[in-house]
Amino acid sequence: MNQHTPITEAPEALVARLATAGRAAQARLARLADVEKAAALRAAAQALRDDESAILAANARDIAAGEANGLSGAMLDRLRLDPARLAAIADAVDQVATLPDPVGEVISTSERPNGLVLSRVRVPIGLIGIIYESRPNVTVDAAALCLRSGNAALLRGGSEAANSNRALMAAFQRGLGAGGVPPEAVQLVPVQDRAVVGAMLTAAGLIDMIVPRGGKSLVARVQADARVPVLAHLDGICHTYLHSAADPDMALAIALNAKLRRTGICGAMETLLIDAAFPAAARVVAALLDRGCEVRGDGRACALDPRVIPATAEDWDTEYLDAILSVAVVDGLDAAIAHIARHSSHHTEAIVTADADAAERFLNEVDSAIVMVNASTQFADGGEFGLGAEIGIATGRLHARGPVALEGLTTYKWVVRGTGQVRP
Amino acid sequence: MNQHTPITEAPEALVARLATAGRAAQARLARLADVEKAAALRAAAQALRDDESAILAANARDIAAGEANGLSGAMLDRLRLDPARLAAIADAVDQVATLPDPVGEVISTSERPNGLVLSRVRVPIGLIGIIYESRPNVTVDAAALCLRSGNAALLRGGSEAANSNRALMAAFQRGLGAGGVPPEAVQLVPVQDRAVVGAMLTAAGLIDMIVPRGGKSLVARVQADARVPVLAHLDGICHTYLHSAADPDMALAIALNAKLRRTGICGAMETLLIDAAFPAAARVVAALLDRGCEVRGDGRACALDPRVIPATAEDWDTEYLDAILSVAVVDGLDAAIAHIARHSSHHTEAIVTADADAAERFLNEVDSAIVMVNASTQFADGGEFGLGAEIGIATGRLHARGPVALEGLTTYKWVVRGTGQVRP
Repeated sequence: MNQHTPITEAPEALVARLATAGRAAQARLARLADVEKAAALRAAAQALRDDESAILAANARDIAAGEANGLSGAMLDRLRLDPARLAAIADAVDQVATLPDPVGEVISTSERPNGLVLSRVRVPIGLIGIIYESRPNVTVDAAALCLRSGNAALLRGGSEAANSNRALMAAFQRGLGAGGVPPEAVQLVPVQDRAVVGAMLTAAGLIDMIVPRGGKSLVARVQADARVPVLAHLDGICHTYLHSAADPDMALAIALNAKLRRTGICGAMETLLIDAAFPAAARVVAALLDRGCEVRGDGRACALDPRVIPATAEDWDTEYLDAILSVAVVDGLDAAIAHIARHSSHHTEAIVTADADAAERFLNEVDSAIVMVNASTQFADGGEFGLGAEIGIATGRLHARGPVALEGLTTYKWVVRGTGQVRP
Repeated sequence: MNQHTPITEAPEALVARLATAGRAAQARLARLADVEKAAALRAAAQALRDDESAILAANARDIAAGEANGLSGAMLDRLRLDPARLAAIADAVDQVATLPDPVGEVISTSERPNGLVLSRVRVPIGLIGIIYESRPNVTVDAAALCLRSGNAALLRGGSEAANSNRALMAAFQRGLGAGGVPPEAVQLVPVQDRAVVGAMLTAAGLIDMIVPRGGKSLVARVQADARVPVLAHLDGICHTYLHSAADPDMALAIALNAKLRRTGICGAMETLLIDAAFPAAARVVAALLDRGCEVRGDGRACALDPRVIPATAEDWDTEYLDAILSVAVVDGLDAAIAHIARHSSHHTEAIVTADADAAERFLNEVDSAIVMVNASTQFADGGEFGLGAEIGIATGRLHARGPVALEGLTTYKWVVRGTGQVRP
């Protein structure tokens, strides 16, 4: 068991040992049938339910230590498990078991004039390293998604959640084993010093992809130090543009929802661009202010309502994750697109308009992972996209963009079927 | 023009300046219609033909300098242009112009219960950095492929080819401009000190992907130092396994072709695995030896022919790129798959067999970018795969694997069309 690893093992040796075991388990996992993987996940979900008292007791130790160490209330809330939260975690595993397995899907097939038949077939990526902070549900979510897509996982959670994570993983692995999956397919990296994270980030050839899940400083560190490819989600500085031809009621409803439904998620709107010709600008700004949103505006936005505060240059590049909004008045579609090109983090941007040509230009010319017309940016979510779950929302440009779920955890190989062809 | 850049400009400033111009050109390129990009490429091909004498004169200066500097005959051959080679380079540009443009392709579409319509649409990656060595044809090939897929390119060729590359690029850019494409869409990074390569590798946010094209040491340096995602092709240690149920004549023809058709390409077989129950082992080995191939074998392979030399441990991990082959006799399919798992570089592996079950197991369980049954590994090539051209053969696992052509130079974005939906 991981927790009995002597603390004296060098970080690189530890990561190499776990990764080697994980890769061997992944090779066996790759040969299991879809139904076997699904059954193992259901067994893991049941094991989580069976271990409720042990898991909650372990979590209580983490909470007590966190309180003693002065963790913030928000951190403690993220860390805390209760019967309802644990049941939701187990139910999510059952849910992942019902998702279609992408592995084996034939992406394309062609026959060459010489009779060779070429197919591209989806295969797992291999061993995925997940580096995350204090939320213990990530331990189980990430393990389930990796396993469903035929990958092994190496999980490195925050030290605040060490007891919770060990108890969750003990149950999860026991369930997997009962379902016929090698338990080493998902492993927890024991929490010792921070050098373990560095060893994971540089384990090229052992770990195939790193997924950082956490705040900006974690993601920035991972991106700076990684030698292994990273599937990263950086900022979500999302824009909504109210075009001159936007329906005022729709614009109002979308702006309120995009900013205020939940302010702390990456798909929350951070900047509202209002066309100078949009007729209900003052009404939208007033409604936001009335609901307790702080509004920081450019000169023309300040003129819309006396409660608007002047924005500074930094505001246009800030992800507030709070009930704060920057508002600029722009002259037409080109100015809106230019503002977004300059300040967006390429996560999610939306236009509200009844003009189909303006909508298509916006969708074509805005270069973000998700572009929307007449919808709230808060829909930027794997569940809302029908993906069943998500390992994260990628803001990089390669491999996968936007909400990443099972398909994003696969790659492909070329399969060539011949009848003795040699190359002339 | 790049060649007039003062040599005193710091490498980071130089790369930032060129990348900024390239990104601006790419944004304009992204709005051009397919036919406009194709026409610009044909104009560039014609400009290369029009500039034949200037290009060949520039190349002659590089050849003379190379001879004075003691470049090897193989290096000089790669560097040398003549009317036929230049015509082939221009024809290849015309060929790329005929390939279908992947940009705008709708990869998938779905409608959610709330009426949101989601599509994934192919878009260019952005600005691609190409770092390569002395072959001047790469300058034009890479520029054409990037441009056809809507990307801008920043090209950094070897100093040996500096005059040739400038002459080729001057023609190519003039042609693009005549065709309505901003010439800054493809730019040559002036050859000054090697620090420019380092500045490209760390230009995260300015360059979206680096493609190294060259030998092992270049690729290794790029992979070690890059902060920008890399589409890399490392070794091609390709295996062919002659199964017990292989047709002897087919096995012989495939083994000879896979090793000897061209020994210097990445898809050339480097290790032959012969099943202990394959009936024509000695005949295959003798035929390879008779054609001048050096054979280095394990104990049982040495017993097949007195001319076989004993292999060392390193042989199984060596990409010879020469008329040298390592040969091992293995006991059955599992042993062959295990040998490949241990020694392959995950480029291309083939099985020769008439047993459909054995073939399927090999195709499923061998984890390489390309897996083949009853065909020569020398087919591992974008042209042979019907992709029209290739920017390289990727041995990494993410984004794209195997031969990478236009589709591999794209990513996607999610397009969401709503009618006013807000998230509950």
